[in-house]
Amino acid sequence: MRLLLINPNTSAAMTASIAAAAREIAAAGTEIIARQPSFGPASIEGHFDDAFGAAGVAEQARLAAGDGVDATVIACFGDPGLDAAREVLAGPVLGIAEAAFHAAAMLATGFSVVTTMSRTCVIAERLVQRYGFERACRGIHGTDIPVLDLEAAGDALVATLEAAARRALAADRSEAIVLGCAGMAGLARTLQARLGVPVVDGVAAAVKFAEALAALGLQTPKVGDYAPPRPKPWAGWASGLVA
Amino acid sequence: MRLLLINPNTSAAMTASIAAAAREIAAAGTEIIARQPSFGPASIEGHFDDAFGAAGVAEQARLAAGDGVDATVIACFGDPGLDAAREVLAGPVLGIAEAAFHAAAMLATGFSVVTTMSRTCVIAERLVQRYGFERACRGIHGTDIPVLDLEAAGDALVATLEAAARRALAADRSEAIVLGCAGMAGLARTLQARLGVPVVDGVAAAVKFAEALAALGLQTPKVGDYAPPRPKPWAGWASGLVA
Amino acid sequence: MRLLLINPNTSAAMTASIAAAAREIAAAGTEIIARQPSFGPASIEGHFDDAFGAAGVAEQARLAAGDGVDATVIACFGDPGLDAAREVLAGPVLGIAEAAFHAAAMLATGFSVVTTMSRTCVIAERLVQRYGFERACRGIHGTDIPVLDLEAAGDALVATLEAAARRALAADRSEAIVLGCAGMAGLARTLQARLGVPVVDGVAAAVKFAEALAALGLQTPKVGDYAPPRPKPWAGWASGLVA
Amino acid sequence: MRLLLINPNTSAAMTASIAAAAREIAAAGTEIIARQPSFGPASIEGHFDDAFGAAGVAEQARLAAGDGVDATVIACFGDPGLDAAREVLAGPVLGIAEAAFHAAAMLATGFSVVTTMSRTCVIAERLVQRYGFERACRGIHGTDIPVLDLEAAGDALVATLEAAARRALAADRSEAIVLGCAGMAGLARTLQARLGVPVVDGVAAAVKFAEALAALGLQTPKVGDYAPPRPKPWAGWASGLVA
Amino acid sequence: MRLLLINPNTSAAMTASIAAAAREIAAAGTEIIARQPSFGPASIEGHFDDAFGAAGVAEQARLAAGDGVDATVIACFGDPGLDAAREVLAGPVLGIAEAAFHAAAMLATGFSVVTTMSRTCVIAERLVQRYGFERACRGIHGTDIPVLDLEAAGDALVATLEAAARRALAADRSEAIVLGCAGMAGLARTLQARLGVPVVDGVAAAVKFAEALAALGLQTPKVGDYAPPRPKPWAGWASGLVA
Amino acid sequence: MRLLLINPNTSAAMTASIAAAAREIAAAGTEIIARQPSFGPASIEGHFDDAFGAAGVAEQARLAAGDGVDATVIACFGDPGLDAAREVLAGPVLGIAEAAFHAAAMLATGFSVVTTMSRTCVIAERLVQRYGFERACRGIHGTDIPVLDLEAAGDALVATLEAAARRALAADRSEAIVLGCAGMAGLARTLQARLGVPVVDGVAAAVKFAEALAALGLQTPKVGDYAPPRPKPWAGWASGLVA
Repeated sequence: MRLLLINPNTSAAMTASIAAAAREIAAAGTEIIARQPSFGPASIEGHFDDAFGAAGVAEQARLAAGDGVDATVIACFGDPGLDAAREVLAGPVLGIAEAAFHAAAMLATGFSVVTTMSRTCVIAERLVQRYGFERACRGIHGTDIPVLDLEAAGDALVATLEAAARRALAADRSEAIVLGCAGMAGLARTLQARLGVPVVDGVAAAVKFAEALAALGLQTPKVGDYAPPRPKPWAGWASGLVA
Repeated sequence: MRLLLINPNTSAAMTASIAAAAREIAAAGTEIIARQPSFGPASIEGHFDDAFGAAGVAEQARLAAGDGVDATVIACFGDPGLDAAREVLAGPVLGIAEAAFHAAAMLATGFSVVTTMSRTCVIAERLVQRYGFERACRGIHGTDIPVLDLEAAGDALVATLEAAARRALAADRSEAIVLGCAGMAGLARTLQARLGVPVVDGVAAAVKFAEALAALGLQTPKVGDYAPPRPKPWAGWASGLVA
Repeated sequence: MRLLLINPNTSAAMTASIAAAAREIAAAGTEIIARQPSFGPASIEGHFDDAFGAAGVAEQARLAAGDGVDATVIACFGDPGLDAAREVLAGPVLGIAEAAFHAAAMLATGFSVVTTMSRTCVIAERLVQRYGFERACRGIHGTDIPVLDLEAAGDALVATLEAAARRALAADRSEAIVLGCAGMAGLARTLQARLGVPVVDGVAAAVKFAEALAALGLQTPKVGDYAPPRPKPWAGWASGLVA
Repeated sequence: MRLLLINPNTSAAMTASIAAAAREIAAAGTEIIARQPSFGPASIEGHFDDAFGAAGVAEQARLAAGDGVDATVIACFGDPGLDAAREVLAGPVLGIAEAAFHAAAMLATGFSVVTTMSRTCVIAERLVQRYGFERACRGIHGTDIPVLDLEAAGDALVATLEAAARRALAADRSEAIVLGCAGMAGLARTLQARLGVPVVDGVAAAVKFAEALAALGLQTPKVGDYAPPRPKPWAGWASGLVA
Repeated sequence: MRLLLINPNTSAAMTASIAAAAREIAAAGTEIIARQPSFGPASIEGHFDDAFGAAGVAEQARLAAGDGVDATVIACFGDPGLDAAREVLAGPVLGIAEAAFHAAAMLATGFSVVTTMSRTCVIAERLVQRYGFERACRGIHGTDIPVLDLEAAGDALVATLEAAARRALAADRSEAIVLGCAGMAGLARTLQARLGVPVVDGVAAAVKFAEALAALGLQTPKVGDYAPPRPKPWAGWASGLVA
Repeated sequence: MRLLLINPNTSAAMTASIAAAAREIAAAGTEIIARQPSFGPASIEGHFDDAFGAAGVAEQARLAAGDGVDATVIACFGDPGLDAAREVLAGPVLGIAEAAFHAAAMLATGFSVVTTMSRTCVIAERLVQRYGFERACRGIHGTDIPVLDLEAAGDALVATLEAAARRALAADRSEAIVLGCAGMAGLARTLQARLGVPVVDGVAAAVKFAEALAALGLQTPKVGDYAPPRPKPWAGWASGLVA
């Protein structure tokens, strides 16, 4: 199957490292096609960045719509552009926050999220509410590590995350950790080994769930709010997208 | 005071008519500055359109950030880009769905929303949940009137809306109507006279609430998730915005 | 416009100071008519006091019903008698807790309430639930300052409130403060300057929102639960009210 | 034990009939002391009536505070003055809506309320939310029977209630009925026999639960929000109450 | 009346002590018939134990179905088998967690639960959600006292519980304590005397509420989900139950 | 990998057909080991049946605990014994209702459940609440088809289900169907082809999600409420299980 992986930010280095993480966990027959928007911020650390990331995901989803993609993963923990992408793609579309929450909720009674900048906790909180994990998610914890610092995650950074996870498990009385950034994809196994509880990376979870949904023959419904966009005039740089 | 009115779609005709509606209700000392994005769809009738509308609002908010704007209104019922705009603007920023819900909840125990395409009801529903009006809002009703048809709203269209509002009031046992589209701004008084219950237009409500908040000396907080965007590299057409 | 301001307690000094605060923020054309019940406690600091305050508000609303009042504000943070007043008055009726919550929710993602006696926190909590601000309101904090001590708020009292607000902002990770007592009306600007986040006084907010709703031509609906009271025999001192 | 039964309205005929219903179900050793306010409406059918009923309950609770009352029941389905009475009385204080909801929830997975005027459904709805029966209570149904018509409930009225209950059971897929007015106290057994599902009268339920709580040695806590009212000046007719 | 008391675990000593506690509080005319399952764990301290306790309650309820039982109490704080028992018994069936939550909610605005092993807090939490006491129950606190240690509760154990209750009251700002284990039945009065707030034992509460419901002539509805089990083939040791 | 599939009822025919459905969707390297309890009802159509099904699942999970099972699926839509099984098994354990809800929520904004006996809707409703799908699940619809009739599902039965699904999609305004019984496992593709929206069978979904979680290296946490059962005396037939 062909799995489209959209990195909503414009850091090519991060696109490459997320793609590598996805390829590592993907099944033998899964081809990973990694893309990033033609515009926008190099990392998403707030609502302003997120608005551009969402439009960037919509752009890439629209551009890939005719490419025979079987499923799509949006690789930023705010799940920007998820609904927009579902309108223009036929196969399942999964956000990595969404996938990570579902995975953690299938395993543990309560989980905690450890993420990057504290100011983004609100974005994760709203996703928790939207998806219905208010009871399963017992806490969302910022570490104030900038997203781009994750590109070269050394021992100190891993230790910081481990300490934050331990504090979260104790304070929240939870039994699993969700890593709140695509840039943490490579750290899940290390942290799981150290913490002794399940540690969920959303990129890996989304890839496996996308494969599962595709194998089940399940697609995004094309009725209701995920029907194709209604035709209308478009202006400016975006008008090329819908020609 | 200077009030920035952003129409998130790219229909210049709708920008003009919303601006006219805003000027009609604005206080004597309020100057209305109407803007629309440089790109994107001519109307917002789904998630895909909405993603571009949000980025367009973010663009216009960013461009206006140094212009001495005292308050801002986002004139599309999905409140696209609301949080993004709050990060880059100092004064209060109000969405018209937000303003309309607040106004209706101050007046009546229960209200109903009458909107355009049924597929957008989900967007309004999520706003109701986000803002906390799950109990006050007793129903959201699509009429499947395309947004751009509202530009020339004739008697038949008003009659359709009136009939939908009557059905909503009866079915929901509610006592007020919220009009679910900026394009309905001019119809509130007519419908209120016919229905005999409060009919809230979000554009007018947002203008008056923005004036009220400004008079109270209240601003968007610049701590937490509405702090200014963190500096970082930007790519593509958007890089000019943050130079 | 004529704006009726009902102080639900029987402290004439507090009525005067609330009226002064209201006049300071009111628009040029707004006449403030301040009233207090003919009976009841000099401050409202619990459910027992509140029951009399509510009946007192109902009394004053009924007495003012024919006076050409355009809008009404109930100036006690428990919003006593709000629904009762809406049954007998035609214009909008706003409680100050209600108004403050709406204002804070229009500005910040999360706010905290700083109030007087801890035992009244339950009353504020129930209003938060009734109005739907469970998610926006992140904490309600008693200071155990008696209401009547606010009449002569000196430096020490302001410092106590400032310290309580700082603790609340940190503990709740919120970005705005709501002052939980009409007697704090004069302190909002001082506290806002010191705290650097929006500080909302409900009296001022209610006055401006009442003006806004009146300007919008919006009235209390006279169908459903706010229809006029059904006629019936009344007994005792109250029978004069409905004659 | 001495059980104080407060009828919040001023209809002496209704006080007598509620007292009779209470005596019929009370245990051998339970003395029923029935009271009504010295002022206020002859029935409670809306928020305005309710505000006076609550103050009337507070008045009667205060007057009875030194009388050696072991438990108290407030016999109006809106539970007016419940919290106020708890501040001034030592024994358990139960509202009849509260008691009926608890009883129905102990028996059935879902119940429906059949009440009098439709405009009072909002009052019952808020109690359902406050007490936490949002899931157990599947519907609240007005019959638009005025409260005082229940004083002489003939066959036609019983038939109307039976029909409303049948419709409610079917529409709500519920398995028990709560009668939503103290004036319906005498009709529960007849309706239960006809409907074949539990029919709960709040007056009887409150009497038996009050006896149960008293036998358990459980009292209203005198810390927190039910601590005795704080002393302060009182004005007007009510000043005698707190002397 | 005949009151069936089912201890869901297989400790005969605990069955006897619970029965003794029930007899102490029961009315003169109430006969207590105590039973325990023919199989399963000697205490219930987790989900695995609970699954067998629920089947054991179902077994005993089925065996007692023809015995003229007027009401039934399930004496384990997880309320195992409550719904199953309601399908096969005609009279009211009450769990002790259920009864304790209802009693505490009738008395205080907020209560705290003090229970045994921390790992069982999740079970109590789910009951709180199912019954609708999310707002009334402000905290559930494990003490990590094994259930069977309660059989010989000495001074040290009582002191441990008292200390846990004091911490809970302060941390939760609550005004009543619910004891979270049938094995604590004998300790409520001692703890209440020491703490000065209501302390609710579920066994006693369930007995008195069962008597109250029986006196009210209220039964488990035999429509909907509590209709008798549908006949079908049964296998293994359980097949004798339904012959 | 070795995947344990527990059918909670004692119908060997149903165990075989569920196992066949599981094998059809399982990956090449997945071995399906199908088990059923040694006791209990041949189908689960209510709370009483469910209590035995849960104990039966606990029994089979305990018996399989040392068998090198990598993941487990519980194949009854009430997810009986799910938590109990998680205490005694190391790998992921999934219920089929749980898996189906997660899958549907990853695809569509709203879904509807079509199930067997109406009396079991309450069981599904409680799972929806427990798992947090209250907003995603827009309706649960009974068809009153007995579970065992599904063993020989002919054209008429499929037509009944199709009609029920169409009514559900229209009434709930939903965009996906969840089949509410393990016995419907073979019908998903036929119904999906006819309805044109995603139709989710929980057995297939659970198998694929179990494979996904196993591939991700995620296990049930062995801290908190899923720690192994505490050792204690056991009685009767069950004592052999824990020897």
